[in-house]
This record gives sequence, structure tokens and C-alpha cells, in this order.
Amino acid sequence: MQGNYDEFDLNLLNNDNSVSLSLEQLNLRILYCKIILNNRLTNFMSKGLPKRSENYSEWYNELVKRADLAENSAVRGCMVIKPYGYSIWEKMQRALDDMFKETGHTNAYFPLFVPKSLFEAEETNAEGFAKECAVVTHYRLKADPNNKGKLIADPDSKLEEELIVRPTSEAIIWNTYKNWIQSYRNLPILINQWANVVRWEMRTRLFLRTAEFLWQEGHTAHSTADEAIAETKQMLDVYARFAEEWMGVPVVKGTKTPNERFAGAEDTMCIEAMMQDGKALQAGTSHFLGQNFAKAFDVKFQSKEGTLEYVWGTSWGVSTRLMGALIMAHSDDNGLVLPPKLAPLHVAIVPIYKGEDQLEQIREKLKPLMTGLKSKGITVKFDDDDQTRPGFKFAEYELKGVPVRIAMGMRDFDNGTIEVARRDTMEKQTVELNAQTDEFIKSLLDDIQTNIYQKALDFRKQNTFIVDTWEDFKKQIELGGFLMCHWDGTSETEEKIKEETKATIRCIPLDAVEEEGTCVYSGKPSKKRVVFARAY
Amino acid sequence: MQGNYDEFDLNLLNNDNSVSLSLEQLNLRILYCKIILNNRLTNFMSKGLPKRSENYSEWYNELVKRADLAENSAVRGCMVIKPYGYSIWEKMQRALDDMFKETGHTNAYFPLFVPKSLFEAEETNAEGFAKECAVVTHYRLKADPNNKGKLIADPDSKLEEELIVRPTSEAIIWNTYKNWIQSYRNLPILINQWANVVRWEMRTRLFLRTAEFLWQEGHTAHSTADEAIAETKQMLDVYARFAEEWMGVPVVKGTKTPNERFAGAEDTMCIEAMMQDGKALQAGTSHFLGQNFAKAFDVKFQSKEGTLEYVWGTSWGVSTRLMGALIMAHSDDNGLVLPPKLAPLHVAIVPIYKGEDQLEQIREKLKPLMTGLKSKGITVKFDDDDQTRPGFKFAEYELKGVPVRIAMGMRDFDNGTIEVARRDTMEKQTVELNAQTDEFIKSLLDDIQTNIYQKALDFRKQNTFIVDTWEDFKKQIELGGFLMCHWDGTSETEEKIKEETKATIRCIPLDAVEEEGTCVYSGKPSKKRVVFARAY
Repeated sequence: MQGNYDEFDLNLLNNDNSVSLSLEQLNLRILYCKIILNNRLTNFMSKGLPKRSENYSEWYNELVKRADLAENSAVRGCMVIKPYGYSIWEKMQRALDDMFKETGHTNAYFPLFVPKSLFEAEETNAEGFAKECAVVTHYRLKADPNNKGKLIADPDSKLEEELIVRPTSEAIIWNTYKNWIQSYRNLPILINQWANVVRWEMRTRLFLRTAEFLWQEGHTAHSTADEAIAETKQMLDVYARFAEEWMGVPVVKGTKTPNERFAGAEDTMCIEAMMQDGKALQAGTSHFLGQNFAKAFDVKFQSKEGTLEYVWGTSWGVSTRLMGALIMAHSDDNGLVLPPKLAPLHVAIVPIYKGEDQLEQIREKLKPLMTGLKSKGITVKFDDDDQTRPGFKFAEYELKGVPVRIAMGMRDFDNGTIEVARRDTMEKQTVELNAQTDEFIKSLLDDIQTNIYQKALDFRKQNTFIVDTWEDFKKQIELGGFLMCHWDGTSETEEKIKEETKATIRCIPLDAVEEEGTCVYSGKPSKKRVVFARAY
Repeated sequence: MQGNYDEFDLNLLNNDNSVSLSLEQLNLRILYCKIILNNRLTNFMSKGLPKRSENYSEWYNELVKRADLAENSAVRGCMVIKPYGYSIWEKMQRALDDMFKETGHTNAYFPLFVPKSLFEAEETNAEGFAKECAVVTHYRLKADPNNKGKLIADPDSKLEEELIVRPTSEAIIWNTYKNWIQSYRNLPILINQWANVVRWEMRTRLFLRTAEFLWQEGHTAHSTADEAIAETKQMLDVYARFAEEWMGVPVVKGTKTPNERFAGAEDTMCIEAMMQDGKALQAGTSHFLGQNFAKAFDVKFQSKEGTLEYVWGTSWGVSTRLMGALIMAHSDDNGLVLPPKLAPLHVAIVPIYKGEDQLEQIREKLKPLMTGLKSKGITVKFDDDDQTRPGFKFAEYELKGVPVRIAMGMRDFDNGTIEVARRDTMEKQTVELNAQTDEFIKSLLDDIQTNIYQKALDFRKQNTFIVDTWEDFKKQIELGGFLMCHWDGTSETEEKIKEETKATIRCIPLDAVEEEGTCVYSGKPSKKRVVFARAY
């Protein structure tokens, strides 16, 4: 019981049922009582966070807001990413950017706007995005003559050609590459861009589907199809590695069916993750563009052999949607659960004290630990805010998903111990404070990172089902999870299944085993199982 | 002469005027000859880069393009930032971001679009930017019924309220802050955003003035005017420190006159740099917003004393314009000159060899140096591209502003030396290759960083003039430079001077000495000198 500040220990009774306490001890007990009451209050308050089991969707929305990750803005469908949410995104960016650079890519920046005529050039791509394009038509405002203090778009500033706010940048980029590429010696071009894009969405949800979102988009140009295909796969692998090693989210790597392909691509590869409600979330895509954009923008190169050829392309992207995946994959009814590799704060230290003297004693005692942690690259906060009670702090760090919480009261101080609570399992333990404690915390963080991934992997395994009959399919899809089924390979069947069950083919897994089977819907022959699921 | 691969050494004659050479030596000489010819060719080619003294403006435009920094795009006034240019910008971002975080700021992200009604709320701000706003009026495209394969903005998707592409984000941010601030306990809010903004410009120049540009904008909220003013000054100091210590560009810190103030601010502070043509460039601004935006968006807080008060604000920003300042402050007729702290590549190594064997010998010999440099955080490239000749490589690294170039041929190999060329002064020296060479290069880089700054500082001193008569003013302004003059403090005088000479008051320097004087234009009394200059 010692060191557990969530519960009041009652082992103080003497044999005769009397209690002997010094005034100091009594004060300490009263302090702990307050903490416990506060904890209960906080728990009561956090009841406001809906339970996942009761309303997963509401739980997500509330969690995003309460954990200060993001909120809706005054602009329909556009979000404000709040500092805490953005700091997680920054960590994602840094890790991904390093991986892109390790694989030979450099960053650049292309315009926000795409002239309509360029946007039209690759017809499949244009058609695919036309319905969600924000269109700039004027470049000036002027005073409204009929309404003092108000402004109107100045009719004299109407653009001859409308500008599309980029929903994706293939058009503007391939139009630029045209001037950069003459010979095979200019290839490959391996460029990435960190940018905002706009896709007008009617039904939006924070991080998962917003009109404006932040992303990176890689756009590469190659002299052979093989090289472009290898690049497409390489970047899919980078995404998978990032999802699993950094986010702790296991993913299925696979190929999209033609129905689900990126508009303008020859082939779309993707990583699909399972959320805690059993639904799928597409976490990243990598497209082999063939020569489609090269043809649309007339991008040719002189080969080693002296012939003139169209360039081969790829594009690949992940977005702030990853934030949604991260939140939904791990968090619980108490709040966020963050993998240490992406947590802005690794360790929160909450001193439990009465008066400045005790606070300073605890601070001094913990200084070597804090120095040790920092020297190991572990971020640590000593929370000495005297306006907030420990119970509130505990609940707040749980809500924010801080992986490790350390508490020290005067009992611990006297014993030379600390209370260490890990966020993923909510387990607490009393740990001796010595020169090795920083090492202990470090390996605890590693353990949390591994455990979070393993837990998500186990969950996915438990919720992945081999389904062979249409009856079972209809039953199981209502319960959620990934349904591994044979499919006859036709768009017709795919669409009918979607109509009847809202399930889509998430991907044809790269590691699918060749086997004889019959389509779960049509009964026609099939060689491979694909992943069906309802999806975000 | 030894080790200088730019010139062919002729010290080979015997006393009898004959020449004794082994075949190997002869081949080596021929190789050197080729290099020299190549150098001359390259010099001839780089003659294409206009001279600063002849056409400074053209020199800048050409340099930006040839050094692969940026180019114009298919979108009027919008630029493409190419990988090399972007990698410099990334270094700037990283350094600034670290400085913002050290001063307690965090990053967040707010929407690209501002609804027109919000944009209008702070009237001075709205008026200031109205003439340069891109306006989104539709959210969908559809097939043009009159033109197959073409798209038009779908009239049915006309927005009820137009959206402004942010020219700056005070409006959207203060509208958000309203919900974040109730009491003094929510203050200060110290947020920065890295983003793109759009200000429609009629006459654009790469980096210096583009319709879309990248920047950071800090937006802070405080409970007292004093605190907000202190923040405004602190961020100006951060900018000045960045300009001087990282970019090597000395700046004058000062206050803008009301005429030049940010629309919506109570006070605008700025840093002003001098370019090599004697013109001024505003490199960063920090605004004290008073309670203007708090009043426009009704952002109040409960003070410690229980009263309800309007919040005090600041905003501050620097942009990709800094790239223009960096280029124009240091570069020369051979190309870019980059301060080592912002150079994507610190050291380029050019082996001069014939055949694979020699290349491998040189590579092996230089390996310890390269390892040593990397361990000191110095980026180094061993350029073994066999398709490009050393002379071209030399010119290319000069054009790109790589601070240090190392060359090693077989003579150096035999002697255990390298040729070290520094980009800032173009000086070359032969240096012994040993375990201390990496340390030598490191201190050379430090020296270059200091020298670049000192050179710019000397230049500014030489081109800063105390001017007391209107005749002298008119003469001097044609020659360029900063004119330190008394001014009567009226907008009227300021405007007349601008009309007559195109010179503006860049700032009232913070360190201006109090002295009695008379306005250089009106003859009225004045207490301080201000900085007049023509500006970018």
C-alpha cells in the first residue's frame, strides 16, 4: 500500500483500535485524504469522457478535445491543431523526415494554387478530385458600397483563370518536372513536400477527415518502370516501419483494388490499421503512377540509348490522419495512451508536499534522477504548480497519455523511494531511488513502447477472421474486425458487398497466400484472400 | 604554386630548357591542363552570371535560379522552392524554432482560410490587407457543359460566405483565443505557427516578394501591456540574434513610424539589414497589438483582482524573404556565399585522379578526415562523380556557396597534403593532412562565419552616412546606403521625402542618441536621427 497515493492506507490502528499519530503525521494523513477526494472528484469528472464500449465515436471526439489535441474552427471542416496535438505531429514529422532523407529524398516546396488548366491535364486525377476543390476566383477585396464596414470580392479582380487550392500536387509538380528533366542524367528526382492541402468534405471529423489537413507528399520521377515500382514499395515499407516502430500500430501492407485506387495512379499500395472498434483506417498510401502524369504534362527524357521516353512516376503520402490512428489504436477510457517515441513528455513528476520546505526537499532529492533522465534524451517535467492538487495532476497526465508518472511524498522521501506509474497498463510500483533509477525508467519506456505495439497486434489477431460464407460475413461484419475472404476479383462484387454491408476491400495483402477458394459473395473461383472491413 | 589546381605550374623546365617527364607525369600534366581549360570554360560560362556592379537586380535573379534555390512557377507570383534552397530554409527554420522554444513558445496550426466576416472584424487590419487577398468563392468543380474535358467552378457550390486565404492569421487566431481565455490563469498564451500565407502582389521577385510565401507567425496573449511589450521586444531580439549569429547579417533594431506600421498594431518593431547595393531589407517584424484584436474579437479575461479586462497581444514573423536577405548580403559574382551555420553542405571534397586506382587511393587517404569532420557535425561530400570534371565541380561548389572546398590530386597524395579553398575570400592554401586537419577545418568554418558577418558589418558602416542637409540627402540617396537624419516626426514630411526620393524611414533605431537637431527636409526641430533608405 505504501507509496500508493490513490488510496488512503488504514494500517494505522493499534491493537486496541486506537490510533497514535503525531500532529505532523496527522497533517500528512489529512493531506492524503484531500488527495484521495480530489482523485475521486477527478474520476467523477472524467466520467464525462464517454466509454469506448458505449460510444466509441463520441469517446474519440471528446478525447481529442479534452486532451487538447485539436478543435473545430470557425471555418467549416477546418481544424485548429492545438499545441499538445501539434507537438505529437512534430515528432511524427521529424521521424518521417529522417526516414525520407535516409532513403535519399530531399524536401522542396511547390505552390498552394494550381491553375485550372493544369489541374485538368491529367483527366482521371482531375475527375477524382473535382468534387472537393476549393476555387479561388478573385484576388482583391473592396469596401462593400451597400454595407458600411463590410468587404466584398472586388468584381474587377476576377481572375481570368481560376486557381484550385491543391487537393494534391501531382499536376503542379509534374508541370515543373517537365523543365527539370531532359536526360536520364537528371533522374531519378526524389522530392518530398510538407504542406497543407484542401479537400472539401461534407462530413468532417477532427484529424480523420478535415477540409484542410497537413501532410507530406513525395513525388518521384524515374527512368524505368521497375525503378518506380521499387520506389513505391520502398516508401510503403517506410510507412509500415514508422507505423509499427514509432506509433506502435501494426499494419497490413497491401494493394488497393482498382475501385479504391488513387485517381491517376496505375497502382495504389497502402497500409491498413485496425482501430479498437474493429474498423480499418488507411494510414498511408504509395502510388505507382506509371507514365500517366508524364504523358499528361509531356515529360520526356533522353535515355542512355538515345531514345526519347516518358518518365515514370510515384507519389506517396501520410497526413495528420495518422494522429487519428494513433489516438484510436491505443487510448482508453482514462484518456490518451501514447507510445514513448512520440510522446512530447515522457515522465511527469508530481511531488506531494505541504509547504515550500517539503517541496524543496523533494526537488533536491529528485534532481539527480532528472539530470540522469535528461542525459538519456528523456523529457521530464517536475510539476510544482501549487495551484493544482496531485489528484488533478494525476488525472491530467493520464488524459494526456504521459507514459510514466512519478510521485514522491514525504513517506517516499524518508524511504528513499518513488512511486512509478505506467500509463499503458496503469500499474504502479514503488521503486528505490538510486543511481540506476534513470536506467530503470529508460527500460520501462522501452517496455511501454513494445507493450503498446504488442497489445495492438494481439487485438488485431483476435479480431481478424477467416470467413468463407456470406452468412458468416454478414454476421461478422456487424461485430467488426478484418474479414479475410476470397473475392472473385470483380468490381461488381466489390460494390455489391459495399452496398449490402458497408464493408470495403481494404487491400489485397502483399503476403497473401496463394490458395484455391471461392468468392464469399459470388461463389466464383479465387486464388487469394483479401481484407474486408468497415473503414474510417 | 603546388596544390593549386587552377593554374598549370611551369616550374618543370630543366636548366637547358628541356623537359624531363615520365609518361605518368606527362599524363598527369595533361590531366591538369584539361582541368585548367575546364576552369576557364566554366569561368566563361559563369560570365553569364551578371556582375553585381553592372546589374545588381539581374545578378540576384540569375543567382537564385542558377544556384538552384528557387524558380517561378506556372502560378502567377508563386515560386517553387527547389531542394537546395529549401534545405537552407530548413536550417533557418530549425534554428529559429529552437530559439522560439527556448523562449517558452510552442507550435500549433490554424486554418488556411479566414471567413470574410472574421477577416472584417479588426477594421484597420482588414483594410490593410484587403487589396491583396485571394478569395475562395466555390468548393467544387464540374464538367464544363460547353467544353469537353474542361472543368468549371460549379455554380451550385457557391459559398454563402467567401473565404479569404490567410494573408496573416491574427483574425482566425484571436477568434480562437476567445474560447481559450477566461482568466489570468490562462495567460500568457505563447504560440507560433509555421505556415504558408498569400498576399497578392503585382510585382513579384523570388523570395523577396511572392504571392505565396512561407513564414512563421507568433501570436501571443498577455494579461498586461507591459508583458506584451516585453514579449514584442524579446522576439525582436531573437530575430536580431538569428540574423547576426546565424545568417551573418548585421541588423538595425528599431521602431517603425506610424506610416509603416503593421495594420492593426499599436507599435511595430523591426530589424533592417543593408544589402550590397546599399538598399535596406526589412528582415523581420514584431508587433505590439495593444488590445486591438482583443476588442475586435471580444477576448476578455478575469484578472487576479476579479475585474474583467481585454487581453493584450503581440504578433511577430519572419519569412522566406530571409532567403533573399541571405543571398543579397553575402554573395558575389561567382555565386552564393553561405554562412557555415546555414550551409546545407559544409565541405566539398574534389578528388583529382586518373582511373579507379587513384580515386580509391585518394578516397582511402581522406577517410579519416571525413570521419573526423562528420563526428564534429560537419557535413562533407566526397564528389566522385566521374562524369563531371574537377573544374566544373569547383565552379559548381562556388556557385552553391559551399564554405570550404578541399581538393586532392596525386601530388598532394604523395606529399600528404590537401588544397583547402575557402569560399568567402576565395583564398587557397595547402594544408598538411594529419589527425588535426579536421580541427583545422572546423576552426576555418568558424572563421568564415565570423568573417562573413564582419565583412557585412564593415560594409554597412562604410555605407551609413550622417546627413544633415536636403542637398546631401538627395545626392547620397542616389548612391545608396543608410542615411541617418533628423526628422520632424510628421507623416507629411515622411511622405514628401518618399515622393521625391523613393526613400522611406526604415526605422527609428532603438539605440538612437538623444540630440538636438533639425529635420533634414522641413528644418523643424528633432531629437533623434532615424534611418532613411531605399528598400526592397
